[in-house]
Amino acid sequence: MSVVKCPDSMEITRTAAWLRATFVVILPLMTNDSRYVRVARGIEPADLLLKNARILDVFSGVFFAGNVAICNGVITGFGASAAEETIDLDGAWLIPGLIDAHMHIESTQLSPVEFARAVLPHGTTTVIADPHEIANVLGLRGIHYMLEASKNLPLEVYVMAPSCVPATHLETSGATITSEDIEQILTWERVLGLGEVMNYPGVINLVPEMVAKLRAARGRPIDGHAPGLSGPDLWAYIISGPRTDHECTTLAEAQEKLRAGMHILIREGTATRNLEALLPLLTTTSAPFVHFCTDDCHSETLMQDGHIDGIINKAIRLGAAPELAISSASIHTARAYGLSDVGAIAPGYLANLLVLSDLESMRVDKVFAHGKLVAVGGETVVGLTPYDDEHVRGSINVSAEPLSFAITARAGEVRVIDLSPDQVVTDEMHIDPLIEDGQLMSDIERDILKLAVAERHEATGNVGLGLVHGFALRKGALASSVAHDSHNIIVVGTNDSDMAVAVKAIVEMDGGQVVVRDGRILARLPLPIAGLMSDLALPEVAEMGRELKQAAARLGCTLPAPFMTLSFLALPVIPSLKLTDRGLVDVNKFEIVPLFL
Amino acid sequence: MSVVKCPDSMEITRTAAWLRATFVVILPLMTNDSRYVRVARGIEPADLLLKNARILDVFSGVFFAGNVAICNGVITGFGASAAEETIDLDGAWLIPGLIDAHMHIESTQLSPVEFARAVLPHGTTTVIADPHEIANVLGLRGIHYMLEASKNLPLEVYVMAPSCVPATHLETSGATITSEDIEQILTWERVLGLGEVMNYPGVINLVPEMVAKLRAARGRPIDGHAPGLSGPDLWAYIISGPRTDHECTTLAEAQEKLRAGMHILIREGTATRNLEALLPLLTTTSAPFVHFCTDDCHSETLMQDGHIDGIINKAIRLGAAPELAISSASIHTARAYGLSDVGAIAPGYLANLLVLSDLESMRVDKVFAHGKLVAVGGETVVGLTPYDDEHVRGSINVSAEPLSFAITARAGEVRVIDLSPDQVVTDEMHIDPLIEDGQLMSDIERDILKLAVAERHEATGNVGLGLVHGFALRKGALASSVAHDSHNIIVVGTNDSDMAVAVKAIVEMDGGQVVVRDGRILARLPLPIAGLMSDLALPEVAEMGRELKQAAARLGCTLPAPFMTLSFLALPVIPSLKLTDRGLVDVNKFEIVPLFL
Repeated sequence: MSVVKCPDSMEITRTAAWLRATFVVILPLMTNDSRYVRVARGIEPADLLLKNARILDVFSGVFFAGNVAICNGVITGFGASAAEETIDLDGAWLIPGLIDAHMHIESTQLSPVEFARAVLPHGTTTVIADPHEIANVLGLRGIHYMLEASKNLPLEVYVMAPSCVPATHLETSGATITSEDIEQILTWERVLGLGEVMNYPGVINLVPEMVAKLRAARGRPIDGHAPGLSGPDLWAYIISGPRTDHECTTLAEAQEKLRAGMHILIREGTATRNLEALLPLLTTTSAPFVHFCTDDCHSETLMQDGHIDGIINKAIRLGAAPELAISSASIHTARAYGLSDVGAIAPGYLANLLVLSDLESMRVDKVFAHGKLVAVGGETVVGLTPYDDEHVRGSINVSAEPLSFAITARAGEVRVIDLSPDQVVTDEMHIDPLIEDGQLMSDIERDILKLAVAERHEATGNVGLGLVHGFALRKGALASSVAHDSHNIIVVGTNDSDMAVAVKAIVEMDGGQVVVRDGRILARLPLPIAGLMSDLALPEVAEMGRELKQAAARLGCTLPAPFMTLSFLALPVIPSLKLTDRGLVDVNKFEIVPLFL
Repeated sequence: MSVVKCPDSMEITRTAAWLRATFVVILPLMTNDSRYVRVARGIEPADLLLKNARILDVFSGVFFAGNVAICNGVITGFGASAAEETIDLDGAWLIPGLIDAHMHIESTQLSPVEFARAVLPHGTTTVIADPHEIANVLGLRGIHYMLEASKNLPLEVYVMAPSCVPATHLETSGATITSEDIEQILTWERVLGLGEVMNYPGVINLVPEMVAKLRAARGRPIDGHAPGLSGPDLWAYIISGPRTDHECTTLAEAQEKLRAGMHILIREGTATRNLEALLPLLTTTSAPFVHFCTDDCHSETLMQDGHIDGIINKAIRLGAAPELAISSASIHTARAYGLSDVGAIAPGYLANLLVLSDLESMRVDKVFAHGKLVAVGGETVVGLTPYDDEHVRGSINVSAEPLSFAITARAGEVRVIDLSPDQVVTDEMHIDPLIEDGQLMSDIERDILKLAVAERHEATGNVGLGLVHGFALRKGALASSVAHDSHNIIVVGTNDSDMAVAVKAIVEMDGGQVVVRDGRILARLPLPIAGLMSDLALPEVAEMGRELKQAAARLGCTLPAPFMTLSFLALPVIPSLKLTDRGLVDVNKFEIVPLFL
């Protein structure tokens, strides 16, 4: 039969994620079929030939010596008649690009492009991101920004539609995402399914809007988020749609959820590190259902521990077989989310490849994305076009009136948020507050400090006021526009004027984090993108983060991560006492409660 | 939050296969969500509770003691507050229903309903069927019949669109399936993707119509069929779409294809049994990519060896761990084809469950399909509504003129099809034929018999004439309307009149198989459905099959399966010399050749 050139007519955009993801045995949506075939057969030269590699066969879990040919970003086979370029890997390990199964780019405080620049050298070539934070600030516009900003990156960024925006009705968020919005978001390119369904009470109690969101995502992957959910309620949750969970903290919890059919995403982030507890779950049998994710990973963590490569390295140190851990973070994660052209080194797969100079320590020497060398020796070596969108800037919208943090004294005890070191849960304590001139004051000696949350989306002028124990500030104030989940401005301080200066600085920076003393700014990290993300590169952001920490420490703060602790004090879904712009929230009662008992 | 009953509005038909199959983490398309949730939580009683089972957890590969609750055909969890019915399994093994990853129902000579009745007691609850045979006879109408006839069965029948109809241009088939037809078929319910792409030369040579069919199926599973394909041509084939193969006969071939990213379907059918050779491929690491199929399984084989249960039983006898073999035939096959509500015993999965009285021997005691008891102790215990369609009957359409099998003698040697015992490939031999009165005759002493293929779709009157060595008939004739792939009437005989009587009998039966001697019918199997399938149950069909074999043996035939051998003599894609209604085909040259050299 004669060789017939096929028209390149069937341009299917690679970005129709739902289509790409339709099947496990799907082939990549190629725009130039005939050339792939001719290169595979050796009729035409390949673009690139990687020679003398020790290639990981994720289908059998073994390494084999061989070559990899690449055409137009896709692997055409294990050899080529000729190639435009040949690289001799000299026996180095070659493994598929790694996948983060669940993460929030916003938590790194990096823009998508800078996030890509930061993680590509670590061998992450695909992430499944839930733009939950920016969605709370900017709604659909924020999600759209994350997609646009990650559009032409060598990093494949897939998105899950945020399912719980706002987190509660007890706070003022910048946006609400309805089930109709979910339906719309799911039609966007690179959106895979529904993001972590945190409102599990709403699911199992069949709250109509929650059920409507699950139905909108029917036939798509639905990520779960059900810490501690067990037995009948867990079964009811699973039968409603969610088939993954990244909140397991004990092996027993993970085993129950796996047995009930959930894919377990082992989370190893900045604050929550579950790998050591959950690693025994990962066996060759369970590998198709067990994956790795970072969820919330801060810039310092990326600098110190790397990304998925660091997690695999730790897993290996804890005794996991490298082949198993790598397969779990590549082919099996890809298959779980229906991404069928990534995760393996085989014909028809995207040429997302890592060259390791050492397997055990997962030292990533070179990274190829779509067949192009994008990182060498820990550095990204390709230009990444920055993407800017004025709509995600200037997101700080507070009322013109100067904010007051004054609390008029009344008789009796007050509720105080009592921090638990290294935890996001808080206790509630009751004390007789310090009163001066009829005003309730921060009480430095007893480490009872004023805490305020200023609404910053609609300039309502809402200011929630409360007290917190555990920051140990002797002077000044700390403020942040990162305050889960609504990301209003949260400020803690020893005196009202420093608190006011700190909030003013946040407003002037268009969002960020700041340490103030005696009216002067000691350290600052501008986060102009939605008040959540910097437009600087990882090293600068991490450095500023360190300076913020040091400045807070100089003010007496003894917390290991004061701004992370601060950012969770406004999250009214984590027990037991929190503060939003509407006031103090008793999370267990799920209602606003007065400061004075 | 209040309990709110959800409207049953979102009736998504369970049959939108492409949607059901969209994702691995898809949830079953339920029409009564709220009840599932309430039953799971114990607010409402379950329909059925299976107690005291040893349940296979396919996610961890272990058995655990527990209960299974079922509501509306779906598993709601591992317990229930109450149940309409409770069955105590008394510690018996409970495993998910088994899946045949690739098969042709027509090969069993059973109608879909009788096929279901035959395999349900063996624990097969899902099959992925390629209606390739009936498509060659009746085209889209035949495929539509297979879907309609299997619509309301407790057996889940999924269909792959036949990709190669007709097999070649060297024969007259009943229909042609174009790429436009494929596009249409793929919109039908329960059609998963493109069936085995046998024309691999067409694929790697980029023949436009073949490429168009692959493109039509883009984003769907595409089954491969590439015996012996290796190296660059294999890579080119895979990159074009096919990501499964069921034609591997050696471990080395299977290992190469698995490494290249193909799912390997280990075939154990009537004629081709590859389990023993390929079983070493199945490990806990490769299990997600290795499955079982029967491809072509005749009624006698179903009677003697069972179905997928028999294959697993044999695998266990050959040393496979039961948990591994069962998982490969359930969850992993389901995931490979994107069937995400079958293959496991967990909340949200269809209640397709097997109770085994013995694990090692895979003795299937009870079978539940969609939560209903459908088979007990080897017998189907539910009524299955037969489906009839006049359009698939009366498919035999031969010309009114009596067919002549006379061959006028000429000088010189003739080509003879030389059978290879137990193989579908043939050799070509050259002999001086027996001539009487200027006519070429069957030569019983040398076992050189007349072979004819009579076109039976369009009454063209085409009769292909040839000679075959190896049937060893001393008297009479054998004829069959099952003759791959075009299924014209093929007849072999010692004399023209018995051959004519045999063909006449086939026509009168509306299709079937027959043994004739001295003008009398010794044995017959009517196959009125497209000339391929009986409307009788398995025991009768198998018995008639035995009678045909015995009758052929009484005529001197020494072949173990004369009618199977006969049915492959018309298939011009298998070397080396075959006969179609157009004449002798030199398969290696891929052209019609004359009888006389």
